[in-house]
Amino acid sequence: MRKVANHWLREVLRWTYQKRTVTRADIIASTGLNSASVSHSIRYLLDRGIMLKVGDLESSGGRPREALSLNGEAGYFVAVDLEGQTMRFALTNLIGDIRYRWEEDLEFGRPLPVQKIVDSIGWVLSNLSESQAERVLAVCVNYPGVLDSAGNITAFNIGWRSFPLHKALSDALEYPVFIEHDKLSSVLAEHWLGCANSHDNTLFLIVERGIGLGMFVDGKPVQGSRDRTGEIGHSKVAPDSRVICSCGQQGCLETVASSPSIIRQYQEAIGAEPSDGGVLRAADVFKKARNGDPAAGAVVERAGRAIGFALSHAVSLLNPELIVLGGDLISGEDLFIPLIWDELRKRSLPLLLEGLQIKSSTLGLDIRLKGAASLAFRNAISNRDLLAKLCRPALAGWQSDLLRTDSRSRDEPNPRNQPQNLGK
Amino acid sequence: MRKVANHWLREVLRWTYQKRTVTRADIIASTGLNSASVSHSIRYLLDRGIMLKVGDLESSGGRPREALSLNGEAGYFVAVDLEGQTMRFALTNLIGDIRYRWEEDLEFGRPLPVQKIVDSIGWVLSNLSESQAERVLAVCVNYPGVLDSAGNITAFNIGWRSFPLHKALSDALEYPVFIEHDKLSSVLAEHWLGCANSHDNTLFLIVERGIGLGMFVDGKPVQGSRDRTGEIGHSKVAPDSRVICSCGQQGCLETVASSPSIIRQYQEAIGAEPSDGGVLRAADVFKKARNGDPAAGAVVERAGRAIGFALSHAVSLLNPELIVLGGDLISGEDLFIPLIWDELRKRSLPLLLEGLQIKSSTLGLDIRLKGAASLAFRNAISNRDLLAKLCRPALAGWQSDLLRTDSRSRDEPNPRNQPQNLGK
Repeated sequence: MRKVANHWLREVLRWTYQKRTVTRADIIASTGLNSASVSHSIRYLLDRGIMLKVGDLESSGGRPREALSLNGEAGYFVAVDLEGQTMRFALTNLIGDIRYRWEEDLEFGRPLPVQKIVDSIGWVLSNLSESQAERVLAVCVNYPGVLDSAGNITAFNIGWRSFPLHKALSDALEYPVFIEHDKLSSVLAEHWLGCANSHDNTLFLIVERGIGLGMFVDGKPVQGSRDRTGEIGHSKVAPDSRVICSCGQQGCLETVASSPSIIRQYQEAIGAEPSDGGVLRAADVFKKARNGDPAAGAVVERAGRAIGFALSHAVSLLNPELIVLGGDLISGEDLFIPLIWDELRKRSLPLLLEGLQIKSSTLGLDIRLKGAASLAFRNAISNRDLLAKLCRPALAGWQSDLLRTDSRSRDEPNPRNQPQNLGK
Repeated sequence: MRKVANHWLREVLRWTYQKRTVTRADIIASTGLNSASVSHSIRYLLDRGIMLKVGDLESSGGRPREALSLNGEAGYFVAVDLEGQTMRFALTNLIGDIRYRWEEDLEFGRPLPVQKIVDSIGWVLSNLSESQAERVLAVCVNYPGVLDSAGNITAFNIGWRSFPLHKALSDALEYPVFIEHDKLSSVLAEHWLGCANSHDNTLFLIVERGIGLGMFVDGKPVQGSRDRTGEIGHSKVAPDSRVICSCGQQGCLETVASSPSIIRQYQEAIGAEPSDGGVLRAADVFKKARNGDPAAGAVVERAGRAIGFALSHAVSLLNPELIVLGGDLISGEDLFIPLIWDELRKRSLPLLLEGLQIKSSTLGLDIRLKGAASLAFRNAISNRDLLAKLCRPALAGWQSDLLRTDSRSRDEPNPRNQPQNLGK
C-alpha cells in the first residue's frame, strides 16, 4: 500500500472533525487534496478504527455516497478549566463528548498549588482500564489571566504571579500538555459545537469577573503575537470614571460592566455596604432591573451601553457576522441585547451591521471544557508523535471496551467518594 | 517523471515569493511537504524557468546549499490604484517589481467611467511584444470605499454608488480581474516588501481623505465576512463632536483626524474661509505646528490623541507587534508618533505594549501598486488555469526578451505621448 502522508491525514482529520459527518467528495472539495490521497487516507483511518462509516447518503444518480465520521472512542483528552469559582475537569473523547467530569473547589485569590491540579488529573487516569489509558493523548488546560513573554501566567483569581504553568504540569505529568487562554477555548467551542458553527467571523464576549473577547476571523481563531488578544475588558469606555481597574488604569470596560462592577455599582447606588444582604450576584441585579428597580436599571443601562461602545470598535475593525454573549451576560440577555444593539446602531457604519446577529451562548458551563478538548484535538494532530499514537494499529478488543457514555449527567456524585473503574 | 500536484507548486511558489531567496531545506521546513514533493516541484519550476538558481549558500559541512528565487520575468500583472488624487497604473513582474508606471487624472467626486480604466490598461498591453503579452496573467485593482453584499462599490472620491466594478472590468478585459480594498493591499505590501516583513501581527493605519486600518493577524491579512474590515475611520472617538461625518454619524475618527478634517479644523480655528490661501495641505498644517503656530498645534494634538484612542481599542483586541503609519501621516510622523504613544500608554494594558513598535511606511506612493501585485500573485497561484498558464513550458527565447527595468523612475514622460514597444 502506498505511504500515507501525515499532512493528508491531518487535513482529512481536521475536516471530518469540523463537519462531524462528511463524504469522500466533501473532503476532496474542502481540503484541495487529490482524490487518490483522500482515498488512501480514508482507508488508512478506517483500517485503524479512527474513522467509521455511519451510513449512506442519497445521491442524485449513481452509487450512494458513504457518510463518514470520526470514532469518538479512538482517543481521549483530559480538559481542565481554571476560570470561575471552581476548578473543573473532564475526560473527553476524540470528538469532544464529555465522558466524565469532576470539580474541585478553588479558593478565590489564594495561590493554587499545581500539585492539586496534578492530583486531580492523576486520580481519574488511574481509574481507567489499561486499553483506555493507552488511548489518552494529551492534557489541555484553560488558563485565566495573561501570559507573559517568558510563558508565565499571572492570574488574580487563582493567585498566580508569573507562574510557569506549562512547565510545571509537563514536569509532573506523563502526557503532553497544551495550555490555552479561556477566551480562545470558548470561541473555538462555539465555532465547533455551538451557534457559531457556520460563521467564520464571530466574536465571543465573556462577562464574568473579567471581560474578554474571543475572536474567530476568516475561519481561524485569533491568537496574536503573544496569545494576548481580546483584552476588551481594558478598552477605555468611561473617560470620566475615577474607579481604578485591576490593571491600574481608569475608564476600563471592566470597571463598568464586569459582574463584580455591576454588583458594586448597585450597592453604591442604594447606599449598601459591600457586605450587606449576603451574596449578591449579577443575576440578582438583572432581576431587580426587570422588576423596575431604578437603581438596578441604571446600572444595567450603563453597563450595556459601555459594552455596546466597546463592541462598536470591534465591529468597525472586524465586521463580524455573529456576536455571541457568554458568562453572566447570558442571564441578562433580554436586558443587554437591546442596549448593545442601540449603541451599535448609533456608533457603527450601517453597512457593517447588515446581517449581524447577536445571540447568547447555549453551551453553558461546559463551554471551556469543550473548547479545551477542541484545542487538544487540533494540537494533537499537528504533533507527529501524537498523530502516530492516534493512528497506531487498533488494539484487540479496544473498540468494545468503551467508557460509559453518560456525558449529559451534571449531578454525578464526586468521583473521589466513589472510586470505580470507569470502563467496567 | 512523477506528476507534480498543484498544491505542492502553490506552497513552493508561495514560500519562495514571501522569503524572496530560499533553499530546498527552507521550503521543506516551511511548507511541511515531504522532501520528494519539494524536489519534484523545484525541478518542475526550474525546467520551466519560473524558478532560478541564484547562488550557493555556505553550509556547515557537506555540500553547499543552492539558493533559489522566482524568476521575476516569468509573469506579469497589471496593477491599478484608484485611491488618491490620480488613477495610477503599473505593469509589475511576477515578484512585484514595477516595470512601468503611468497615471491618469481623477476628477474628485465625479463619476469615473470604467472605460477610462479599460483604455489605460489596454494601451500598455498593446505596446508589449507578443511573448510578453502572453505572460500577462491578471489585472488587480485597488478600490477605495466600501463593497456591498452584492459586490458593488460605493466610493465618494470616484463618484461611484453601487458600481459593479468587478463585472464591468471582467466584461471589458480579456484577463482575469481581481479587486481588493486598498487597506488590504497596503498591509500586504508592507508585509511582503516593507518594514512588516518579519511581523505576523501588524496594523497599517492610512490617513488620507479617509482613514482605514489594514490588519495582518497571525500571519494572514484580515478579510472579514464581506471584505469590510478596518473601518477605524468610523470608530467613535469624539462623543461631544457635532460635526457630521460622510457616513452620516457623529464622533467618527475621520471628523477629527482625516486630512480634510485637519485642514478644516485649522481653517476654523484661524477664522479663514475654506477658499482662503489657495490649496492648503495637511502637511502645511503639520509644518505650522512644528513652527509653534498654536492653532495648528491644537489641531494636530486633537487628531493625534484621537488616533491614539482609536488605536488603543485595536491594540486591546489584536495585540500587534507593529503599527505602520501611512498616507499623509508620514509627513507628520515626528508630531503624531509621540501623541499616539502617549495615548496608548494611558489607555492600554502595559503588557500589550511590550515590544510594540510604531513606524512610518517607507514604501511611498507605490505601496498600493505593490500590494495589488502581491494580491494578484496570491490569487493567480490559487487559480488552476492561471497556475497552468504560469507553468506552461517556456517559449523559445522569451527569457532574453525582458522588459526594460527602470522600475525606480518616477518622472517618466506620460507614455501616451511616447508610444513605444516596451520590450524593444
